[in-house]
Formats: sequence, structure tokens, C-alpha cells
Amino acid sequence: MAAGAALTGVKVLGRQIFAAQRNWSCVSRRAASTIFKASDLQIELNKHPKEKPEVSALVFGKTFTDHMLTVEWSSEKGWSKPHIKPFQNLSLHPASSSLHYSIELFEGMKAYRGEDNRVRLFRPMLNMERMHRTALRTTLPAFDKAELLECLRKLIEIDQDWVPRSNTASLYIRPTFISTEPSLGVAKPNHALLYIIVGPVGPYFPTGGFNPISLLADPQYVRAWIGGVGNCKFGGNYGPTIYVQQEAAKEGCQQVLWLYGDDHQVTEAGTMNFFLYWINEHGEEELLTPPLNGLILPGVTRHSLLDLAREWGAFKVSERTVTMPDVVKGLQENRVKEIFGAGTACVVCPVNNILYNGSKYPIPTMENGPDIAKRFLKELTDIQYGRTPSDWGYLV
Amino acid sequence: MAAGAALTGVKVLGRQIFAAQRNWSCVSRRAASTIFKASDLQIELNKHPKEKPEVSALVFGKTFTDHMLTVEWSSEKGWSKPHIKPFQNLSLHPASSSLHYSIELFEGMKAYRGEDNRVRLFRPMLNMERMHRTALRTTLPAFDKAELLECLRKLIEIDQDWVPRSNTASLYIRPTFISTEPSLGVAKPNHALLYIIVGPVGPYFPTGGFNPISLLADPQYVRAWIGGVGNCKFGGNYGPTIYVQQEAAKEGCQQVLWLYGDDHQVTEAGTMNFFLYWINEHGEEELLTPPLNGLILPGVTRHSLLDLAREWGAFKVSERTVTMPDVVKGLQENRVKEIFGAGTACVVCPVNNILYNGSKYPIPTMENGPDIAKRFLKELTDIQYGRTPSDWGYLV
Repeated sequence: MAAGAALTGVKVLGRQIFAAQRNWSCVSRRAASTIFKASDLQIELNKHPKEKPEVSALVFGKTFTDHMLTVEWSSEKGWSKPHIKPFQNLSLHPASSSLHYSIELFEGMKAYRGEDNRVRLFRPMLNMERMHRTALRTTLPAFDKAELLECLRKLIEIDQDWVPRSNTASLYIRPTFISTEPSLGVAKPNHALLYIIVGPVGPYFPTGGFNPISLLADPQYVRAWIGGVGNCKFGGNYGPTIYVQQEAAKEGCQQVLWLYGDDHQVTEAGTMNFFLYWINEHGEEELLTPPLNGLILPGVTRHSLLDLAREWGAFKVSERTVTMPDVVKGLQENRVKEIFGAGTACVVCPVNNILYNGSKYPIPTMENGPDIAKRFLKELTDIQYGRTPSDWGYLV
Repeated sequence: MAAGAALTGVKVLGRQIFAAQRNWSCVSRRAASTIFKASDLQIELNKHPKEKPEVSALVFGKTFTDHMLTVEWSSEKGWSKPHIKPFQNLSLHPASSSLHYSIELFEGMKAYRGEDNRVRLFRPMLNMERMHRTALRTTLPAFDKAELLECLRKLIEIDQDWVPRSNTASLYIRPTFISTEPSLGVAKPNHALLYIIVGPVGPYFPTGGFNPISLLADPQYVRAWIGGVGNCKFGGNYGPTIYVQQEAAKEGCQQVLWLYGDDHQVTEAGTMNFFLYWINEHGEEELLTPPLNGLILPGVTRHSLLDLAREWGAFKVSERTVTMPDVVKGLQENRVKEIFGAGTACVVCPVNNILYNGSKYPIPTMENGPDIAKRFLKELTDIQYGRTPSDWGYLV
């Protein structure tokens, strides 16, 4: 529209006329950029790289690499050029609406160094797609997913020495997208910042084996609800869970098993998706996980376990609602074989106890191998560390 | 405990022994401070005060004064001394868990300049109490509410020239409390920042009269739920509403009327509490607002309207659940007199239409005066601007 106005010469700004006189492409570049491009990356290398810590000393999420990616957006100018620059603090206006109204979202991914010394991401486009979907629900601007992935790849290439030389550790990747709108109206932001920080993380199970966890299933706390944003990786889904996590700890449990509705539907375990491997009510061997009905996050690991299990064809694979009474009945009838959480951090995390309605229910996951959980862990990590060729691995 | 250990002399750090040797009070001062005190305020005045804008030019939440209050907290040191300093950006670690998990909360209050030229807050301790309650639910640290109020009072005293000389404009006050924990674990923060920013805001109804609003009541969107944090002023309650607000705008409505449950209970209107003045099912004249059952924010204006109405004794005053079918039936039977929202921004905001299940229901609020809404507006603003003496006014 600006270009058209410039060419007609009616009431235009001098610089618009100037642009129009030069060429069309120059004019179109003056409109707000609807995408940013990896080919426009501005790279400023860190002149003071940090010393890399021992893998054994790593605590999740506390160590970061030498660089970060930032891309600014405004409704006026659209996307600016992406920058890779030394890891540094953000300077934010104290009214930034991310800090007041939680107009913010994130993703969680990992890069793995294989035995071939090559670094791989795992199905990264699934994260880009979820991030984009969450952005639209949060009224943050759209972006080109493939361009963001290429910017991310470049960041990891620059910080590749930070990817642990280990077949259990990895580089955790945290894409983040926040409103930087400096005003207090509860409104769609006109300013935003997309950034990515990365850092090495140790193995989830340091001893090499599985460490099973116990879960508190207390229906008085509800993580997400139909009509809300429980299926988005929205910051506001996480803050309120910490208090409940503390309540679980008081009861001697390590995580929360989130229930929903009067029938106590099982939804998520901590920040993981929930899996039940059992003989179902009809006598069928079944791997069951709750459906994508808006209550749960569509996890990349969840997606991958379902894909693998369907490929195996060894048992029924179901995405359907299961309630705590169903689980309790299955336990009483010795039909439950394994219960585990699934997520990027651990791949699979076995459950050995559920505290529900004042009763502690032992879950025989470990007693049963856990055969299925172990098979998932092996097949997925074989792909992630490049031991099994797969198009799920994405070379950096 | 540290002091006790120091006195027994077993395996203690040198500085603990040193402290114990000096005196007990010195030892106790080394423990993390569980409160901060206004008497410890460190004040750095702004040497470059800004020009104050015309009241008529103000847009809500975009203009800020010359100073801000900040108080830092860490689990190791407890509360630091409070600071009043020039308004400035925050420098935040990009992993700050406020930006990832929405460990953040806020309050909304106003300071009013009366015709006696004195500046008053309105029932500020109610805000301090709500803020404290939200902090505990968000696993942010406790603080002394009276000390925070005194720090706030001092900030407004310093920026008192920013309080508009107007009997309709005011100084908006935004206490904010965020996690500054620089790590990605979903966990109780060890670092936090409490800050207050303030800025002048114009009259909510610039024309002097009421401007009624229309509401979209669409049960597919749910603001909060039983078992969640809808009764806290938690950042994550606000971000997801903006998309729904846009959907309302597409339908020609100005705000969202939030419903809950299969029976379509009315909960809140936009970011305001909901009030219905009608002849109820039993033929009684009744002012009704939804109850504090965890779904709605306990508003200070809501609280004050209930207090005033009960003092008047002119009609029944109820905090009870009302559904959209109840409201529709009341409209069809000509029993509904006024519907209005209540909040700090507008005091009361009349509703003239509700779009529900595809039907537009005209609400006769304006046709009925609106007598009750106007009476509330007058009595509350008379107190706020000091025209009526009241212990609800708090002199700065």
C-alpha cells in the first residue's frame, strides 16, 4: 500500500518517494517484515569464551554457552535481522507485558553428539510448529519456522564445542518468545523478542539405570482445563505448578500426577506426558496415553513413542482418556505392567508409586523390567545419538 | 542454627565465629532478612525529570513517572534494602524464570488528588494483602505488607507532582513481583525482584458520562477453573485472554464475559468483576455478584461496592452463582435492571449488550439510569477524591 501511494505521488513522505524512484524491491522491503531470515544473521562472536564445566558437575538449566540468538519484532517494522551475540542479560522496560501478563512461551529441545562426533537435533520441526502455534494463541507474531530452525542450527554450530562428548549428556536448547511491549494495557503486544539460549545438561539418570519416581494424584489441584491453554507451551501453565509440586514433596512424592474432572481423568505427570502399559478392561495388551483434547501438551517424545509403538505393532496403541479409578482397578486386578512419564529431559521416567485419595498404590513398573520403557529409551536414544540411522535425526 | 553452631565452635566458618564472638544481634542480622523496612529506603533522585504530559493526552499504562521502587530478594540473603531510584530498564538474565514459567504477579491501584490538593490511596492494604497471598501461591517470598505500603507511599510522595490535578484522572500504581532466578528448572525461585512503577492515567470515561460496553459470552473460552489460580493476580491469568478479546472484537463486542461450567456460570467481565442488579427469581430486589469460590479475582472495588450496598440496606445483596440462562430468563421477564463491571480502572462500567449462543441480548442498564451504577460511582469517587471523609482514604 505504501508503495502504491508513493507511485501515485499523493501525500507521501520524502523517503517513500525516494524508495519508489529506486526500485520496487526496495519499496517492498520498507513494509513491516513478516519473516526473518537466517541468511540475514548478524554474528558477533564472544571474545571471552567461558571455561566448559565437567559433565558430571552439571545441574539442569544453570549453565549456558557463550552465545545466544535474539530476534526483535515490532508491529511497525516487523522482524529485524536475527543476531547471534555473546550471552548477556536482557534490558527490559519494567512495564514489559511478559512480566505482567505472561505474554511469553518457550520450547525445550536437545542437541546430541553422536559416536560419529556429529551433532544432531531430534525432530526439531515439531518444536518449531508447536512454538508457532503457541505464539499465535498468545498473540505474539508469526515467523517462518524453517528460518528459525536454521538460525538455531547456526547457533549450535557456533557453540558446538559445548555439546557434551558423552552418550548420555546433551545440549539443552531453550527457544523463548516474550512480549517486550512497554505498556500496561492487557493487549496484543506491539513489541516482542524471540531468543534462544542453550546449555549443556548431564544425564537424567546419572547412575545409568532408571530411578523410578512417585506421584501425588490430588484432584484439588488442576493444571489445565478445557477452554484454556493447556495444550500450548505457555509460561503461565508452569508457574502455578510449583506450589503443588511442594505439596507433593510434603507427601513424600517427587512429582504431581495431574487429574481433571469429577471422574479424575489422568492428564500429565509433572511436566511429562503420561503412559500406561497394561492389559486393558477388555483383556487387550495396550499402551495408552491421554488424548490431545486440549488438556495436555502434545509432547515430541509422546508423539515419537506413539510412532515407534505403532511401527512395532506388538500391542494395541491408544490415545484415550483413562481415569484414576480405571488405573486403581487395573492395579487391583494385576493388569498394570508399567507406568511412565515421557519428555525431552528423560525420554521415559518410570513411576513406582501413586498416592491417591490418601492411599499409596505401588506400581510394578520396575518389577516388569520395565521392558517397554527400556525399549523406548534404547530406540529413541539410539536415534538421538546417531547409532540408528533415522530421518528423525537432524544434523547440525 | 548458624549462630548456635558458631557458639559450640564445631566445624564453623571463620566469619560465623567472628560474628558469634561479637554479639548475638550481629549474628541474627547475618541470617537472611525475612522482611524489608521502609526505614531502610535508599533514595536516589532522578536528575533528569521528564516533562509531564497533558492529562487529556494520556493513554492508559504508557506514561511513567521519574522514579520506581525496587527491592531485591535472594534465598541466601533474604530481602535487601528497598531502593527508590530513577525509572529505568531492568537487567534480567535471559533464563529468569519469570520469563519462562510466569513466576510473576502484580497489583493495580490508584492515587487520587483531592480538591483539598491532598493525595490519597484507596484501601491500599487490601491490595497489599492480595499481593502477599498471590506471592505465596506463586512461591515468591513473603514480605511485610505494612512496610511495602510505606515504601509505596514514599514513592508517591516523591513523584507527587505526577498525580494529576483533576477530579477524574489519577496516578495508576503497578506493584509487580517477579522471579529473577537465572535457571531453567521449574522450581521455587532463589532470586526475586519486587518493584513498583507508577504513571498518570486519564479518566476512564473521557466524556464525563458513562460509555456502556458490549460483552461476548462464549462458553468455549474459560478464564479460570476450580483447582487453578483464578483468584490470584497472577500474570498467567491475563496473557491467554488477549486472543479471546480479539475474538470478541471480531463479533463487535468490547469485552469478554467469562463463563464457567456446563451451566454457563457468569464469572468475570473482561478484567472486571460482574454485577447484576435485578428482581430475582423470588421477586426480590437484589444486587448480585458471583461468589469468591476460586474462579474470580477478589476485587477491591467489588469488595467496596458490597460494603456500600450493605450499608445502604436498600435491597438484598448476594454473593452467589448466577448462570447465563438465569440472566436470559431475567431479561425475558423484564427483571434485569442493570449489569455492570467493577474494577479499579473505571469503578463501574455499564453493560448494554451481551452476545450469547449467537443471540444478542440488549441489557437495559442505561435505560435504567443506571441508578445503582451511578450511585456507586459517585459514592466511591467522593471517597477517593476526598470529598467524603472516610477511613477508606489513605493519605500519602
